[in-house]
Amino acid sequence: MSNSTEHRPETGCLKVSSKSSPASVAGAIAGMIKDGVSVEIQSVGAGAVNQAVKAIAISRGFLSPIGIEIYCVPAFADIVIDGEYRTAIRFTVEPRYTRGVQRESGSSGEFSIDE
Amino acid sequence: MSNSTEHRPETGCLKVSSKSSPASVAGAIAGMIKDGVSVEIQSVGAGAVNQAVKAIAISRGFLSPIGIEIYCVPAFADIVIDGEYRTAIRFTVEPRYTRGVQRESGSSGEFSIDE
Repeated sequence: MSNSTEHRPETGCLKVSSKSSPASVAGAIAGMIKDGVSVEIQSVGAGAVNQAVKAIAISRGFLSPIGIEIYCVPAFADIVIDGEYRTAIRFTVEPRYTRGVQRESGSSGEFSIDE
Repeated sequence: MSNSTEHRPETGCLKVSSKSSPASVAGAIAGMIKDGVSVEIQSVGAGAVNQAVKAIAISRGFLSPIGIEIYCVPAFADIVIDGEYRTAIRFTVEPRYTRGVQRESGSSGEFSIDE
């Protein structure tokens, strides 16, 4: 059991807008998390942030039955869109028991919790 | 070191609206987390969810320098406001290293990370 919490084999990025479908984004999140890939979600504006949060909540329902709990960590990010500076919210979504999970790198998501 | 992840000594509740000040809410979150209290944040509507997420991101900046990392888990919650059914987003905010943190119950937030 490794104590390295900052080890991220891969990270997938999703840009979510206020018009994104939370269910579709949730499917993408669940797929990547199952494959052992951390997910970063970027959203600009209240509507986009709201869709991102709904997507994360929905993806929990996809992952929880197969024994994977996720958490998210929101952070501010300064980005440039069409030459203008905007403040985005970036959510890092990761499996909750990273330290206790034995994962084969690049596997199709076979998780076993060692506790 | 306990493996019990579901043990929550106390939980503080915050209701966040679209008019809430993220900085003020962040201060409240940081204060409770420092005192060893888990925080539940309830928000209804995109504007309120956005303020809640900003508050969580800001509170990370208060807690990180003293060695406490937090994560949040969003979930849907059906609530009744003025006789009408609404869907709220409820964020559970907890310290990220609960299992590795030695905490005196009811203390003023002296944390030591045993890793």
